[in-house]
Amino acid sequence: MDLQRLAADELTIMLLALGLLIGVARILGELARRFHQPAILGELLAGVLLGPTVFGTLLPDWQGWLFPWTGPNAVVLDAIGSLAIVLFLLVAGMEVDLSIVWRQGRAALKVGLLGTIIPFAFGLAGAWLAPVALGRQADADPTIFALFLATAMAISALPVIAKTLMDLDLYRTDLGMVVVSAAIFNDLIGWTVFSLILGMMGTRGAGLSIGATLVCTLCYAGGMLTVGRWLMHRVLPFLQAYTHFPGGVLGFAATMALFGAALTEFIGIHAIFGSFLVGVALGSSPHLQERTRMMIDEFVSFIFAPVFFASIGLRVNFVTHFDTSLVLLVLGLACAGKLLGAVLGARWGGMALRDQWAVGIAMNARGAMEIILGTLALEAGIIRQRLFVALVVMAIVTSAASGPLIRRILRRQVHRPLAFLSPKLFLRNLAAESRREAIRELAAAAAAQSGLDADQIEAGAWAREQIAATGIGHGVALPHLRSPDVREPVVVVGLSEAGVDFDAPDGQLVHVMFLLVTPAGDPTVQLELSAGISHLFRDPHSLERVLRAETYTEFVAALKVGDSK
Amino acid sequence: MDLQRLAADELTIMLLALGLLIGVARILGELARRFHQPAILGELLAGVLLGPTVFGTLLPDWQGWLFPWTGPNAVVLDAIGSLAIVLFLLVAGMEVDLSIVWRQGRAALKVGLLGTIIPFAFGLAGAWLAPVALGRQADADPTIFALFLATAMAISALPVIAKTLMDLDLYRTDLGMVVVSAAIFNDLIGWTVFSLILGMMGTRGAGLSIGATLVCTLCYAGGMLTVGRWLMHRVLPFLQAYTHFPGGVLGFAATMALFGAALTEFIGIHAIFGSFLVGVALGSSPHLQERTRMMIDEFVSFIFAPVFFASIGLRVNFVTHFDTSLVLLVLGLACAGKLLGAVLGARWGGMALRDQWAVGIAMNARGAMEIILGTLALEAGIIRQRLFVALVVMAIVTSAASGPLIRRILRRQVHRPLAFLSPKLFLRNLAAESRREAIRELAAAAAAQSGLDADQIEAGAWAREQIAATGIGHGVALPHLRSPDVREPVVVVGLSEAGVDFDAPDGQLVHVMFLLVTPAGDPTVQLELSAGISHLFRDPHSLERVLRAETYTEFVAALKVGDSK
Repeated sequence: MDLQRLAADELTIMLLALGLLIGVARILGELARRFHQPAILGELLAGVLLGPTVFGTLLPDWQGWLFPWTGPNAVVLDAIGSLAIVLFLLVAGMEVDLSIVWRQGRAALKVGLLGTIIPFAFGLAGAWLAPVALGRQADADPTIFALFLATAMAISALPVIAKTLMDLDLYRTDLGMVVVSAAIFNDLIGWTVFSLILGMMGTRGAGLSIGATLVCTLCYAGGMLTVGRWLMHRVLPFLQAYTHFPGGVLGFAATMALFGAALTEFIGIHAIFGSFLVGVALGSSPHLQERTRMMIDEFVSFIFAPVFFASIGLRVNFVTHFDTSLVLLVLGLACAGKLLGAVLGARWGGMALRDQWAVGIAMNARGAMEIILGTLALEAGIIRQRLFVALVVMAIVTSAASGPLIRRILRRQVHRPLAFLSPKLFLRNLAAESRREAIRELAAAAAAQSGLDADQIEAGAWAREQIAATGIGHGVALPHLRSPDVREPVVVVGLSEAGVDFDAPDGQLVHVMFLLVTPAGDPTVQLELSAGISHLFRDPHSLERVLRAETYTEFVAALKVGDSK
Repeated sequence: MDLQRLAADELTIMLLALGLLIGVARILGELARRFHQPAILGELLAGVLLGPTVFGTLLPDWQGWLFPWTGPNAVVLDAIGSLAIVLFLLVAGMEVDLSIVWRQGRAALKVGLLGTIIPFAFGLAGAWLAPVALGRQADADPTIFALFLATAMAISALPVIAKTLMDLDLYRTDLGMVVVSAAIFNDLIGWTVFSLILGMMGTRGAGLSIGATLVCTLCYAGGMLTVGRWLMHRVLPFLQAYTHFPGGVLGFAATMALFGAALTEFIGIHAIFGSFLVGVALGSSPHLQERTRMMIDEFVSFIFAPVFFASIGLRVNFVTHFDTSLVLLVLGLACAGKLLGAVLGARWGGMALRDQWAVGIAMNARGAMEIILGTLALEAGIIRQRLFVALVVMAIVTSAASGPLIRRILRRQVHRPLAFLSPKLFLRNLAAESRREAIRELAAAAAAQSGLDADQIEAGAWAREQIAATGIGHGVALPHLRSPDVREPVVVVGLSEAGVDFDAPDGQLVHVMFLLVTPAGDPTVQLELSAGISHLFRDPHSLERVLRAETYTEFVAALKVGDSK
């Protein structure tokens, strides 16, 4: 018997299609990040470009050849997309730390509770009052449609929320932990309800009755969060001790995610629920090393997730199915319900007014989770493309808005040194042999760029230097001054092969200098930049790496490597 | 138009099948490593267990349901296997460092040249003299069969060879570098010839003529090794500086590998040749960070490679197609040609007699590469299952034999501390408050286990301690003695929460003690163990991690994490 496999030309198409999906999604994802937007926005856009919306309109034959709707290539791409989403949910689950929820206590529970129930009620009410305006098809089951819409309104996007909070240095604060634990609560409830909706439809899996599916789902969830967690916690040290590290744990995590996914798919809910809970069980063990977690996270986020999110755009025409009034209605309903619920919850939890709104806006971000929910509902036939497009737009708008709005509400801005570097403010080879000369060279560069007076900068930095030398050790110095004439920080970098004596505490010569000119009115900026720079040089190999850089780009690359360690 | 996709039950089967392949392959792979065998042996065995050989014989219906030969699941599993092998060759290519070949100069070139040509000639001669005994089918093209057999005899397995050399601490020696660079030379030639054989068959890709395929192949290889290398070297710092690190580089590597694979598949040779050369171009740039390289390596080696190697066994019955005389003939021909060629090359290169044989046996390992070559030839119809099984057995035997044989020839044994730990020699909570008391406790444990006299060990270690204290800093001490009464090292570990003063150079109290009792006749053992232990504690967080361990397993896990950093 001969094995049925992809022919050579089909394999070529598969490789090309996957390469294009990952490549274009990564490029647009990076562009989105550059404009402080979530990467998923760019990844979705890649699908819009490569799918029927653009590529298919311009060159329908080519598009149909590369991304066919039938035949082995269609099946293979769909299967790889399913695998990608199973692994993505494993990672999303790993970010869930159940112990945080307990530790945060009442405020988190109140935000989680009202932030789930009120938008859920809004969704139910909307589906009951205006089913047609919200895109219900005539042949759809009204109960299933209403439950789905309610779930879609109630769900949050833990990965997007966590990322936004980290960007604002809020993740480890009380506010951040309340939001994260409320979102975890929210997600657990949301995905359980959604799984049951799929079970009610009875079109999946082994064809169990709805009662049996319900019992199995609750048993699986309960078992995984108790016995499963305990088992993983026991198995992890064993794997780390007696198998290859970290490969042994990687293989174990992938195997468990696939088995969990197969099991939940079998009992009639969706595969992703299984891998999500495996992720929760794995991620909550303190034995899971940060390094292993990061490795899975990076690989999945930068290779699998782009395939999945880009492939969404391949199947839907975002222009022809864009219905402005539906989009606005969904967006309004979603924001109203979530903001009201989360803000009331935060108030009930005794938080300050400003924090209440920050919590509300953070919880309002729907990101990846909403889009996944929508995709599954579309596949299952619960909704049609018009509502799907509206949900995707709602997810993107709420995610993109949350970071800037929280920043404004909390009047919070984080200054990271990398954001202020520029090729014009980079002096690869300082001629200076003394501290004074080095500061003079750096001041001249700062002046040329910012329009300040070079002598004034030099004098200011030198005066500061006299009070206490600014060498921070490990070959780095941070001469600085505050100036009433700048509105944004100016950061000049100078490298010196020979080294300059900055009277550093460890007695080493300084090879990397950052001159920081910060606004006089904002005393925290300089502290943030200094802290950021010493963080970049925390790794003992950073200096060596940085000095190997010959161009500005190589210099930034070397800093980035140190940053991510 | 509805998208053709996997139904829910097919998705369940796919997830279950992949989970089983990865899970069983990883377990058997780890078992193989435990017996100092290459992991690939266990991974292949997993396929034999799950395929027609065992599972299919016991429960043919279940096996056919889980791993069908036709239908969407067969196609999807085959496509994922193809992807896995494309990524595996990317990693194999990344291990190729062309600059090593140039630096090693003549000896490497001579070994590479004779180590390729002589086994190639043996293969040609074998195919000419005894085609039927070597498994040529009546309908096979004699030229193609002869060229394939010659290539199969000539190819080496760089990944296995590199791993063997690393295990013996020989990788960075002159001997190691000659072997590695000869194997690189060997692989480049071998894969180019094999690609051309596939091109000659004209069954793949766009149906170019053999001349056009030849030209395209040489252009691609030449271009990738020159312009491609230069471009990657330029692009890497840019990606590290301006995209997420290391995710940006991961996505780039995957995209390039897929495009390279699609291109070579299109021109009529195999996809893996494309990703292999992308790997070579990427891996030869010093800008590729060790961290990124390791991340790709671990993920591919522990998730994708097991899928591929296990899936080989799914398609072949290794019992019914096992032909003893063919296996012996292939094994003899392969070993004779390769040993003769490599040993003569090493002699020509002026190496010592012992080293000549070490080089020969190292080059003789065929490992993964031979199996991949065989799989492709089987798929392409060049060979049948009988010869395929013989090639796989030859690959495994030569790989498994190379480590132990080199160890014997060079009389080389590397002592790694982790190998001598045991739960019985692990004292979680030392009661000792002084150095003398700590040594007494450790000595008592060593005596209980090795049958030596406790007082004698204590006296010996204490006498040594008087000469110079054995605290090595960072909270670690290595009291030791040599004893004529032990044949193998005895290592006892003691942890102390309170800390013991070992007069360490950094003034810190010691929390982790290793008592080393080594054979008096072998002065290097103790040095190797000491070096190994201080390597384990190189990472500043190691001590903290180790002290958190409550059981022996957690202790070993904590050490392993430090080891792999």
